[in-house]
Amino acid sequence: MATYTPPIDDIAFLLNDVLGFDDLMQALPGHEEVNAELAISVLEEGGKFCAGILEPINRSGDEEGSRLENGVVSTPKGFAEAYKAFVEAGWGGLSGNVEFGGQGLPRVMQILLDEMLSSANLSFGLFPGLTRGAVEAIEHHASEELKATYLPKMISGEWTGAMALTESSAGTDLGLLTTRAEPVGDGSFKIKGNKIFISSGDQDFGGNIIHLVLARLPDAPKGVKGISLFLVPKFLVNEDGSLGARNGMSVGSLEHKMGIHAQPTCVMNYDGAVGWIVGEPGRGLNAMFTMMNAERLFVGIQGLGIAEAANQKAAHYARERLQGRSADGSRGPVPIIEHPDVRKMLLTGRSFIDGARALAIWTAMQMDLASRHPDAEERRKADGMVALMTPVVKAAFTDFGFETAVISQQVFGGHGFIREWGMEQFVRDARITQIYEGTNGVQAMDLVGRKLTMEDGALAERFFAMVRADLNQAKATVPTIANATGEALERLETASKALLASRADLAAAGSAATDYLRLFALVSFGWMWTRMAAATQDKDNALARRKQAVAQFFADKMLPQTIGLAASIANGSRSIMALDADLF
Amino acid sequence: MATYTPPIDDIAFLLNDVLGFDDLMQALPGHEEVNAELAISVLEEGGKFCAGILEPINRSGDEEGSRLENGVVSTPKGFAEAYKAFVEAGWGGLSGNVEFGGQGLPRVMQILLDEMLSSANLSFGLFPGLTRGAVEAIEHHASEELKATYLPKMISGEWTGAMALTESSAGTDLGLLTTRAEPVGDGSFKIKGNKIFISSGDQDFGGNIIHLVLARLPDAPKGVKGISLFLVPKFLVNEDGSLGARNGMSVGSLEHKMGIHAQPTCVMNYDGAVGWIVGEPGRGLNAMFTMMNAERLFVGIQGLGIAEAANQKAAHYARERLQGRSADGSRGPVPIIEHPDVRKMLLTGRSFIDGARALAIWTAMQMDLASRHPDAEERRKADGMVALMTPVVKAAFTDFGFETAVISQQVFGGHGFIREWGMEQFVRDARITQIYEGTNGVQAMDLVGRKLTMEDGALAERFFAMVRADLNQAKATVPTIANATGEALERLETASKALLASRADLAAAGSAATDYLRLFALVSFGWMWTRMAAATQDKDNALARRKQAVAQFFADKMLPQTIGLAASIANGSRSIMALDADLF
Repeated sequence: MATYTPPIDDIAFLLNDVLGFDDLMQALPGHEEVNAELAISVLEEGGKFCAGILEPINRSGDEEGSRLENGVVSTPKGFAEAYKAFVEAGWGGLSGNVEFGGQGLPRVMQILLDEMLSSANLSFGLFPGLTRGAVEAIEHHASEELKATYLPKMISGEWTGAMALTESSAGTDLGLLTTRAEPVGDGSFKIKGNKIFISSGDQDFGGNIIHLVLARLPDAPKGVKGISLFLVPKFLVNEDGSLGARNGMSVGSLEHKMGIHAQPTCVMNYDGAVGWIVGEPGRGLNAMFTMMNAERLFVGIQGLGIAEAANQKAAHYARERLQGRSADGSRGPVPIIEHPDVRKMLLTGRSFIDGARALAIWTAMQMDLASRHPDAEERRKADGMVALMTPVVKAAFTDFGFETAVISQQVFGGHGFIREWGMEQFVRDARITQIYEGTNGVQAMDLVGRKLTMEDGALAERFFAMVRADLNQAKATVPTIANATGEALERLETASKALLASRADLAAAGSAATDYLRLFALVSFGWMWTRMAAATQDKDNALARRKQAVAQFFADKMLPQTIGLAASIANGSRSIMALDADLF
Repeated sequence: MATYTPPIDDIAFLLNDVLGFDDLMQALPGHEEVNAELAISVLEEGGKFCAGILEPINRSGDEEGSRLENGVVSTPKGFAEAYKAFVEAGWGGLSGNVEFGGQGLPRVMQILLDEMLSSANLSFGLFPGLTRGAVEAIEHHASEELKATYLPKMISGEWTGAMALTESSAGTDLGLLTTRAEPVGDGSFKIKGNKIFISSGDQDFGGNIIHLVLARLPDAPKGVKGISLFLVPKFLVNEDGSLGARNGMSVGSLEHKMGIHAQPTCVMNYDGAVGWIVGEPGRGLNAMFTMMNAERLFVGIQGLGIAEAANQKAAHYARERLQGRSADGSRGPVPIIEHPDVRKMLLTGRSFIDGARALAIWTAMQMDLASRHPDAEERRKADGMVALMTPVVKAAFTDFGFETAVISQQVFGGHGFIREWGMEQFVRDARITQIYEGTNGVQAMDLVGRKLTMEDGALAERFFAMVRADLNQAKATVPTIANATGEALERLETASKALLASRADLAAAGSAATDYLRLFALVSFGWMWTRMAAATQDKDNALARRKQAVAQFFADKMLPQTIGLAASIANGSRSIMALDADLF
């Protein structure tokens, strides 16, 4: 079985030849010293860690799973050691704030590390991923005292983080949650309630576990306006920073899941646990969305990472597996990669992966821009692009990521269904990414209902104009992909105008949402394929030939989907809303 | 959690109002006594068995799994008892040949029973499903003596059957298989070799297990022409029909699988096991295809059955689960079935399921026609339709079936990922149906390479003409679905002509195959939706309102996919064949 190869050459190509990483870093105070060379050398080391330490415990972790015995969680063999090595090597604090001991490197590098973590071991990657989400919420909303107490050890990774939002009757609709927070009088609160689906809710790595818990203050109004956010540590922290008494919280059970078995996804009981408020009373959702937006991008990257790993293994298998005759019948058995339908499956995955990675880096560059550019207007514009792209990255990357895992498994035929080959784990693990941190249907509603309507549609128009300009520039040199993407962009703009015009009609928005998000993503990938094709059109090396061929495939075989999506959107909501609920 | 409700009303509607079941039965010697009323009353009982006996052991069977200890296979708790009850109630022999003790009922009833079995318990359904495949091969190809010895007890279900084809290096490409059969001199053979992926390869129900094993005779030519088929029983059968000595075969291990955990999928070792040839030497693939074609339709029906069960549970959950506000903001929390995207997921599943069931019945009617119609030309034509439809039913039903399982799971949000809810099992179980009995890519190649070219294209043309005639007839009364299907049919006919014209170009055929099969299936479902809409257009009851609304949905939201598929096909094979194998 092939092992995972970190896609360093592809990353270098994107940073150097397609997306102008060095120029951006030059323009960002604090990042002037960062360039592609540095980024690549760091990511090469990160890739070695992922391939050498994390991938080898991915399947064994799935088989063994996390366990709960007598209230104590055990992660699978090798996880605690790997986590210790991860922290010691400094990977936890890569993009962390230097003020609290982080290395302050750009988001671009972080998401590329996240991709490799997700390729190698999705369950493991959730520990640092959730810690970083919690760090962002604390950094942006907590008191100086909380920051000083918790951030250094969370950024180093010595302590991990968890987000405790969902309750059994309050998932998408957090306004229904019932966990309560009672003020003690000394600035702290007693938290009482039960939460479910808490990823990284406990572990056996040592250190502390910092839960960010959504709860209601006494007399808080109903609905989302009555929700506040609380920092609730597993161990209370002494004045000198050492760990004190166990807090009043416990793991009720571990969820029995389809995938990510190594992840201890917890049912948590808070029985008067001591907590401290993060942000203003009643503004818990606001603080939560700071971490949630970071997590949504992270989850999108998970979809990309799993797809890369699955596609690599499928391509390797397809080169080795001998079965059937060549197309002209003259040779056989031949490697199945000679068969057109196998090639099509591999190219479908590859054309998503490379387009998505480029788009992810572009989005992360906008995040770096938004947090560091000296010009406030530039920051505002970049922030808008990140807001627009967040639901697209979360939902499209995980939908295409799951589809890529499935077709990569299909390349293996019957062997793909057998656990030993590892392909079915990709499918089971990838499935959660379409669900958690807001289901993909919720992402699509966010895109249509909130993001498309931002600035009265001007934000989306700015994005489309930028894409159009790039396509026009590339038309002469790479006409196939530029023109096919241009036609798809027209479909997207038409759909956008129609949805903006009928924005008061929530049934129309909801009926179009998932089609619209997929259309939006395909255009965005096409934009990136146009730029990748343009960057390689005068070259003749292996990477250039690969990009040219896959760009052509994306134009010929993937972009046609946009025609059907546009037609479906144009057909409106009548057929979706007509049927009585009891007749389904 | 909702329990499965057999779709008896929908079946009655299709038999009575859409597909003219009674008229067909009248025309078929031996089936004159069969009519929809009889069929429904039998299927109602079958449905009770599936919902009452088989569904309750579906999830427990998944959790427990089949086990192998000291060479002995144990199926999960309740399976042996359920199988005994299944046989005692006579379900095994429903459509079996009366000459050997079967009830001789039509294939239409069999596939509807199969659907319910698959909805309730896919792993269980594979026991009678594979037995029936083996019965067909024996009935059509074996000697009278073998028939007399084995068929009565296999048709009753007292003995089960298994198909032993695949070896670790010979899957799709059976020409590579190495299992050997040496003549003993008394008419029997000694079988030596190893097979993998053998569903129902062993069980603990008692009785015998009849393996049909592909193997090579000494000095047989290489490739598929050197393959013969052998009947190899677990226990040798004494002259009086009682069970004798254990044959020289054993279960090497059980496969560790993504799903169908209750099914004992065996690695089989044949260590000089005694067997008897079925059919002519070197004609093993021919005999195998008799059972394979029956199995392919059965597997397609499995996809339909899982989709029905998953969609039912999702619709029930969506009516019960309260989350979010109504579209106008006035009420909340509301049942999530009020949200457009949830409705869209449910309708996507439903529009496939009802269309597929209608098409399955139509196909089974062609099978009944092909085996019993007094006019040879009618039989030949019906046989052609079955050949044409076999890959479509196998691949499209399982692809859409898997997709329906996934979106039905998605309706449950995070709960869908949790094992206790049972939705993730549907996804894991459905996944195998896209792989076994010939992967769906192989089915697509069969459709494009073999079926489309039959009679130099005249068979497909006859099908298209029949569809066109039905659409024309329905245009005046149900224009939306009839016209939308008509446009999709034009796309299919254009693609068909192009593929026929370039039939020598195997890369073109292979590159278009999966797109073409999906296009073919969508047109076929649209044809059935047109007929269902036409049959209900002047009625105003719950079933009629449901059919009208879902037909509209299929026209508005599913048929647009055909535009993209046709465009992708038209873009040819260049982008699929261009890339060097080592650059993937």
